[in-house]
Order: sequence, then structure tokens, then C-alpha cells
Amino acid sequence: MFLHPISWPNGKKCAASVTFDIDADSLVRVGRPKDAELRLQPISMGRYGPTVAVPRILETYRRLELTQTFFMPGWVMEQYPDTVEAILKDGHEIGHHSWAHEDPMEHSDEVEAELFGRALDTHIKMTGRKPRGYRAPVYSITPAIVNRLIEHDFLYDSSMMADDLPYDVVTPNGSLIEVPPHWGTDDWPPFAHMGELDYIMPVRGPSDGIKAFIEEFDAMYEAGGFWMPVLHPFLTGRLARWRELERHLERIVEQGDVWLTSMESIAEHAKSTGSRLRKENLDTGSAPATPPTP
Amino acid sequence: MFLHPISWPNGKKCAASVTFDIDADSLVRVGRPKDAELRLQPISMGRYGPTVAVPRILETYRRLELTQTFFMPGWVMEQYPDTVEAILKDGHEIGHHSWAHEDPMEHSDEVEAELFGRALDTHIKMTGRKPRGYRAPVYSITPAIVNRLIEHDFLYDSSMMADDLPYDVVTPNGSLIEVPPHWGTDDWPPFAHMGELDYIMPVRGPSDGIKAFIEEFDAMYEAGGFWMPVLHPFLTGRLARWRELERHLERIVEQGDVWLTSMESIAEHAKSTGSRLRKENLDTGSAPATPPTP
Amino acid sequence: MFLHPISWPNGKKCAASVTFDIDADSLVRVGRPKDAELRLQPISMGRYGPTVAVPRILETYRRLELTQTFFMPGWVMEQYPDTVEAILKDGHEIGHHSWAHEDPMEHSDEVEAELFGRALDTHIKMTGRKPRGYRAPVYSITPAIVNRLIEHDFLYDSSMMADDLPYDVVTPNGSLIEVPPHWGTDDWPPFAHMGELDYIMPVRGPSDGIKAFIEEFDAMYEAGGFWMPVLHPFLTGRLARWRELERHLERIVEQGDVWLTSMESIAEHAKSTGSRLRKENLDTGSAPATPPTP
Amino acid sequence: MFLHPISWPNGKKCAASVTFDIDADSLVRVGRPKDAELRLQPISMGRYGPTVAVPRILETYRRLELTQTFFMPGWVMEQYPDTVEAILKDGHEIGHHSWAHEDPMEHSDEVEAELFGRALDTHIKMTGRKPRGYRAPVYSITPAIVNRLIEHDFLYDSSMMADDLPYDVVTPNGSLIEVPPHWGTDDWPPFAHMGELDYIMPVRGPSDGIKAFIEEFDAMYEAGGFWMPVLHPFLTGRLARWRELERHLERIVEQGDVWLTSMESIAEHAKSTGSRLRKENLDTGSAPATPPTP
Repeated sequence: MFLHPISWPNGKKCAASVTFDIDADSLVRVGRPKDAELRLQPISMGRYGPTVAVPRILETYRRLELTQTFFMPGWVMEQYPDTVEAILKDGHEIGHHSWAHEDPMEHSDEVEAELFGRALDTHIKMTGRKPRGYRAPVYSITPAIVNRLIEHDFLYDSSMMADDLPYDVVTPNGSLIEVPPHWGTDDWPPFAHMGELDYIMPVRGPSDGIKAFIEEFDAMYEAGGFWMPVLHPFLTGRLARWRELERHLERIVEQGDVWLTSMESIAEHAKSTGSRLRKENLDTGSAPATPPTP
Repeated sequence: MFLHPISWPNGKKCAASVTFDIDADSLVRVGRPKDAELRLQPISMGRYGPTVAVPRILETYRRLELTQTFFMPGWVMEQYPDTVEAILKDGHEIGHHSWAHEDPMEHSDEVEAELFGRALDTHIKMTGRKPRGYRAPVYSITPAIVNRLIEHDFLYDSSMMADDLPYDVVTPNGSLIEVPPHWGTDDWPPFAHMGELDYIMPVRGPSDGIKAFIEEFDAMYEAGGFWMPVLHPFLTGRLARWRELERHLERIVEQGDVWLTSMESIAEHAKSTGSRLRKENLDTGSAPATPPTP
Repeated sequence: MFLHPISWPNGKKCAASVTFDIDADSLVRVGRPKDAELRLQPISMGRYGPTVAVPRILETYRRLELTQTFFMPGWVMEQYPDTVEAILKDGHEIGHHSWAHEDPMEHSDEVEAELFGRALDTHIKMTGRKPRGYRAPVYSITPAIVNRLIEHDFLYDSSMMADDLPYDVVTPNGSLIEVPPHWGTDDWPPFAHMGELDYIMPVRGPSDGIKAFIEEFDAMYEAGGFWMPVLHPFLTGRLARWRELERHLERIVEQGDVWLTSMESIAEHAKSTGSRLRKENLDTGSAPATPPTP
Repeated sequence: MFLHPISWPNGKKCAASVTFDIDADSLVRVGRPKDAELRLQPISMGRYGPTVAVPRILETYRRLELTQTFFMPGWVMEQYPDTVEAILKDGHEIGHHSWAHEDPMEHSDEVEAELFGRALDTHIKMTGRKPRGYRAPVYSITPAIVNRLIEHDFLYDSSMMADDLPYDVVTPNGSLIEVPPHWGTDDWPPFAHMGELDYIMPVRGPSDGIKAFIEEFDAMYEAGGFWMPVLHPFLTGRLARWRELERHLERIVEQGDVWLTSMESIAEHAKSTGSRLRKENLDTGSAPATPPTP
């Protein structure tokens, strides 16, 4: 089933990590810079994430005794310090998710480097350490960003889709674990409706939308693989949707044979498997540092 | 489940309010001003709302002895006076919904103020009182509109999405109850198909589309929360769809433990809970009164 | 349930008419005039309609002894004379559906008048009579077209959506029966995928897509109303979809209490109910004859 | 049910061929030529096809003892020689699928001819023979391409949609078997999500998306027809989706009365039925060789 299967610790049958990207109102502020301040509806929709959904999600995690991963733009961390504190207090991981969810394909790498560093400073200041993992806004990771992650000793990225299981991205400058996402377990297609970003979906019902993620889990469980939904508090943290996913997590926990853990733990384990891990060569050296002017 | 739960009156387990925005043919007239008069298909589709769907909805409400809320643009009230009269005769609430469904982000706040006032005059003239509630077209509420609502003694708005339950929007100029909508209970994504507004969805089947709203209710019921679908007579007032929703309302009414009432009653109750209500600060003072030229 | 119910002949509980618009390859030829000849894929997809799907549909109709209605652009009639002959041989109705599916909103009414007349001539030449009914391409009927239909003694139109049941469109120049379509029973949203027309839907499965139409029927049946799907041979005439709809028609026929007939019969019956029919006033006199230049 | 039914060999009740188009990262490289090198996410998503999905698919085919067909752009063959080798080693067919998935409607036929020939050379070099079949990128086959296929002795094309069953495309320059695809059995509408190509679908769940294909099979099986899904390894080769389709293939194989074979075999059999095959005349002579400048 897998060309490069991974054995999970303690005899667990499969591994899983639930990731939430807390973009909050950075989406509309970056997407509509000229008048975002006036757009109270998308701002309020974004604010639902850290102020309503994250406490709900943390409560579930505490009850089920889970340690999971959140990705946060630095700007969002600065705007919502209580959210950062609550997440850290419960022992969860916070990964790097850009400064304010700017798409790296829409500015030069000089700008990207500056924004990346600004977010890194925020992480160090607010979490007391450098983040170990990174996910690019809209998954737009570039070769220059890969180089930057390696340069800053990141353990893993989670933006590329070349495999079902974690793999090793090998560049001339060093390597990085990739913990791959997938559009079939991302909650934007079933749930997002945001005219301000020209992203208007027909919005699935709660059980219908979450069922797709659960079927992805079932296949991964059967094959001894890895399941990683990419969720957003303002979408899947909504009451009815979270109730569906929460029930699924309860089932997994009760089952006992799934290693449901943070991304950092997954990536460390993958790295520890060494030469058995799939290698994906990436010639980041030859890639231009700056995207051509659009 | 909720950080700021609300206890409902008379020991009711949860609260609910079914809201209909009667936009009628204002949508195509504002969306295609140059030639709307020629577009008889979207005009007739809009006219279905007040002339066919609203009588059907009112019949259900009479049979189930419900008092609910409709939001109407002033222009629609003037065009369909019988609709206004029928709604008022049965004791329902009519909320402010702009002059003719113009998106406030697409004109200056001076124009918005004029249109807002014109609609307000229509409400006073046709209903005998100032409306207590407001919903912005396409939810596009701005800080200047919030100020205007407070200035005109509105009790509540229903355009922002920062919470599941009603909350208090606190500004330097006073406060306003927010009764929040949500894209998961809006009927445009499952049912709308309007090329004239560049909004073309794959149109769900009646039971499939309404099932999503019912699942949202189920989650809110279980948690003791608040359910508020945002519907449109020309969409959900269609026979097969309304039959699905009507059956759901019959079940709720029979159950007896749901406070199914008007938005005004919900907002008044929320306001009466005082300091226990979530406060959301909004610095409407610092917001520019006029959106930048697009 | 209906403000203006209609009693159906012979004690039938409800009425129904299955309509097929045979647009064939006119869609891509008009939509991409500069290079349509090169686009063999959408041309072949369109040709599937008259050459494969229509014979299949006619076979079902013969077996179930049904007389139904097809709408055909004049250009399509000229291109597919065998299709016209086969339809007429089985006693079905052919309605006017423009010259070659040009959207009336995209040219002047002078052009529209010329195209309308050209198609009318084709109908007279190929069917031996003037058509009794009309449906506008993409439902884009204008006041000038309504006047033209009345001038040419059309019995009915089927492009406007102001009611569930047939109604009377009353203009200063005379009246016309409207047999209203509805987006919930149109097969473009569930099944069409045509990049050449910028209309790309996620394509529902056969049973899922047809189920929506059947639920609309069920509601109409229960209420004693009228069901009229708007179908296209190249979409719903595909084998698996037609199998689903065919089974539904078999059930209806077996049931025996549904008046499943041509649009002409429906419209004549509606007209015969006289003053009990809903009147919809339309001031076609005041409408400009020519749309403003886009 | 079919105007031109085909009897299948050895008393098989129906025929089927599972086709995979291995586009890999050619999609983003051609779609975003200015900066594709920077877009690691769509590149990695594409790379999933040959490196992860194709081995999985081949394993299933080996287990079920199936010989099927893959279509590959020449550039992809050059980039992924191991994939070509693995496919050939198991005895499967590789069809011509352009040089690098460039849409033939977006360049002149001179350019198209050059790209076509370059891919042909790659096929000959890597597979040791000329391909027998062709599928156009995004199905954009033109009259000039049809002429070119005939000139190069291709047995069949699989880009046009005029029938359910294979048919004979007759031109002034000779003829070609068409093995027709259909949007209801293409995996882009249910599963693709690729902002770089402006193709963003709401992404169905695995069982929901595959169910549509199976229903198409069921209808074809019942009618003794032909079923040919058009799949992409990076979409349907994903674990959970492939598991659904694999189970369906297992059922078909166990059933024993379905001729599940390569496209070449299907086309050869269709050709052998001679005059009973549907003829579709195509005047490729009169078509301009070069599309007008867009």
C-alpha cells in the first residue's frame, strides 16, 4: 500500500495529527488591504476563531488528553495573546504560519524574508523558543522558503503534497521533514465562503463535510498510515462541525491503537526512521530567489 | 461548550429565530442597473418571494402560532405594500435591510446615510414605528453603520459572525446587541443560482440543503444555544424546500422546549442578561467614515 | 398551499410536463464564435443530444405512451432534420427556443427580432405550423420578446419564475400563459461542465442529481401542483441519469393519478381556468425595445 | 437502449477500461510558466501521481491481473522514466497525451504539430513503438489533430463525447475509432482543487465521488455498454479514493462477465465490428489548420 511505510511507536496501528491554522482576521486584512477595517463581517467571522472556536477545541483536547498543533501567523499571535497563552498552557505546539497570511507568491523573496523574520521574533518572544514547524499560507511554499527553514533549524514543513506519509526533503543546503497535507482533508473546500477572497463554495452540511475527513482516516487506519486534517477554527470550530469531528476523535482515543499526537512528535519520529524514509530531492539552489514580477 | 452561555426564559432548553430577508427583485435591479428592466427572469424569480413564498410562510407561522422576523429593504416595502401589511397583521417583526439591497462597500458613507434614512422613513410610514433591528445587505456592515444604528436607537444588528450566541458590541458611542448569522445556516450557498450577480451554485436538493440547517439546529439544541437560519423567500420559500423546513419547525414546536421567537425578543432577552453577555469592543470612532475609492 | 390552485382534468391529483431543450452544438458555436469549428469536444458533447439521447428519450416515451415537449433552436432543427421528424412522428410538441441559443441580452432587439423570425420560419417549414410555446435561451426573456410572442399568437412562454403554477402574464398588448421553470428542476446546476461557457459545476452523481428533481415532484404531488423539469438531452439524456429519471416516470405512469402531458396541453388547460388564474401585470409598453450597449 | 450496440467478445455482458492520465507537474508548469519553479505545492501535488499513486494502481492491477491504459505527456515520460518502465513492464498501454499538457486551443497548429511530434519521438524512444491511442489535454482535440492522428496511423482517439460507445470518426483523409469520455466519469469535477489553474471545486468525499462513477458503471452494465472513467493518479490515486475504486474493480473482476481491458483492445474490437459501428462524419478538410488569434 505504501512504498515507504513507517512503523509507529508503541505498536500503534496508525498515526494522526489534527492541525488548526488560526488565521483569524488576517485573511481579510491582507486580502482587502484598502478597506479591510470597514469589513466587519469577515473580520468578525475571523475573530470567531481565536475567541470562540479555539477555547472549544482546547476543552475537547483537555478532556481527551491530547497534545496537538496549531499554526499561527505572527500578527495573529500579537493580536490574540490570550489565545497563544491558552494553547501553550495546555502544552500544545504552535507552528510558524507567516507574518499575516500573505501569499509568498505575491511579493518578492526580500519582503518574504523580512515578514518571516518578524514572525519568528514574535514566536521567540511569545513562546520562548523557535518554532519547529512551518506551514505556508495557501500552501505557497517556495524553494527560498525551504532554504530559510533549513537555515533556521526547522524540523519540518507541512505545505507540500508529494506523499501520504512524512518524507525527507533533501536540498543542497540540508534537509527537512515534510509532513504532507492534502486537499481531501482541508476544510476550505467543504466549508469556506468568503467573497472578499473570491472563494465561494456551496458549503456542505456538518456531517457531510466531516464524513469526507473520516473516510480519509478510515483508509489511513486500515493501511497503517498517517491522517492529518488541515482545519481552521472559524470553519471546523463551528459548533455543529466540531461536534462531528469531536465524536470522531473520541472514537479514535477510545480505540487506543492510533498515535494521535503533535506534528513535532510525528516529524521527530519520521526523522528517526532515517534511511527508510522517502527522499525527495529539491534543487533549491537553482531556483531564483525572487518570483518574477506578476 | 459556550464561554458565555445564555439561560433562556421559562426553562426553555434552547432558542431559535427563523429570519427571512425579502429582497425580491431589488437584487437584479441594483446588481444590473443598466438593463434590469429587461431581465424578466431574475425579476420574476425575485417576485416569487413576496407574492408566492411569503403567503406560504405566513400560513405555516399562523398554523404553528409563531411570531418571527422578516428583514425588508425599504424599496421592497414600497413595491409590495400588501406583503408588509400581511406580515404586520400576523404580528411579525420587520427589520431594516437597507434601501434596495445596495452593498454598503460599493458607495460612500454619505450615500449610505441617505439610503439608510430613506428606508427608515419607509419603515416609520408603513409600520408606524422605527425598526428595532438591522441586517446589512450581503452582511456588509461597516463601523459607520454601527454608529448610525446606535444613533437611531436600534436594539440589535444581525450581520456579524464573532460568536454562536448573541453578544454585546461596545463602541465609544454606545452599544448594540449582535444576533450573529453564520454561512452554515444561510440559504444562498445551497440554493442560489443567479448569473446576473455572478453567484452560481450547484443547487442542492431540498432535503440535502435543509438537512444542513437541521444539523446546525441539533448541535445548538444539544448545547442549549441559539439557532438562526438566514433565509430568502425566493429560495427556501420554494414549495419542496419549505416543506422540509416546515416539518422541522413542526417538530420543534411539538417538542415544546425550544424558544422559537422573533429577533427582537431574542435581542431583548440577551440585553437583559447584562454583564454576563460577551462584550466585543469595536472602535467605530477610529474607522474612516468613507471607504477608499475602489 | 397555493394562493391560486388549479384543478387538473379527469380528477388527476397533479400535473407534470417533462421538457427537453435540444441545444446541441449551438451552445459552443454561439459561445465561442471565433473558433468553435475547432472545438470538437464541446461540439461532440452537444451532438450527443440529438443523435444519442433523443432517440433514447423517445423510446421511453413510446413505451410509456407519453406526449411531451421539446424546445429547439431553429438552427438546431435545420442541422438535425431527422431529430425533428422523429419527434413529430411520435406526436410530441416542439417549442420555439431562439435561432441558435443566442442570449437576447447580448444583442439589440432588432437583431433579436430578426433571429426570432428566422426560427419561426424554420418551425413553419419543418413542422407545418407556428409553435404554440417559447422558452428563451438561458431564460433571458425581455419585455420586447413578450410583445413579440403575443403578436405571433403564442399560447405560452416558459422562461419566468414568479410562481409554482402556470399564470397569466397580462400586458397592454394582450396576455400570455406563463408555465414557470425553476432552478431547482433545471439540470445545468447538477450536471453541466462546460469551460467554453465558463460554467463549471462539480457534477453530481446520477441518483444524487435526479433525486433533487424527484423531491420537487413529491412536494408538488402532495400539494396537487405542477412539476416541470427543464432538461437537456446531452446532460440528463446520458444513460445513467436517464435511467434514474425514466424509473421515476414509470412510477408516475403506474400511479395513474398524475396528468403527465405536453406543455401545450398544460397551458391550454391553465388558460381555460380563466379568471381563477393568477394575473401578473407586465408593462411591456414602457420597456425600452433595445438593451443599452453593454 | 443503444442505437448502435456492440457485442463484446467471449460473451461478456459489458466492456470497461480504466484510464489514467498521468499529467504530474506538467499542469502547473504549463499553466504558470512564469514562476512554476517556485510553486512547490502544485508541483509536489503533481509528483504524487507518478511516484506514489501509480505504484499503488499498478499493484492493484497486478493483483487483479488487469491490463489497462495510461495516457502520458511526453515531457512527463522524460521526467519519470521509472514510471514508464514500470507501466510497460506490467504490460499496460501508454497513449499519447501531448508534449506537456498544453491546451491545443492556446497556440497555433504549427506549434501543436511540433509538440505532437516531439511527444511521438519520446514514445518511440521509450516504448519502442508508436502509440495506438491519443487523448487531448482538457479534451481539446481539433480537426487538424484528427488529421494528424490518421496520418500517423493512430487506431483511436479518446477526447470526443458524441456517443456512449466507441464510434467511427470518418474524415476525407481516413477514419479513426473514437472511444468517448464523458464528464460524469471524469475525476476533475469531484476531486480537483487547483487555484493555479482557476479550477476550484468543493472536493467530494471519497465514497461520494466514486459512487457517481459506479452508478455510471451500473447503468452501462445493465445495458451491455461500455464504461471508461477518466482518472488522474494525483486525484483518484489518493489512498481513500483508490480504495473505493479498487473495491469496485474487485467486484467487477469477481463477477466475471465484464471485459475489463486496455483501450487498444476496446478500439480494435470496435473497429472489427465494421459497418455496424456508428459513423460520425467530420469534415476535417474544411477546418482551418490554425486557430484564429485569441
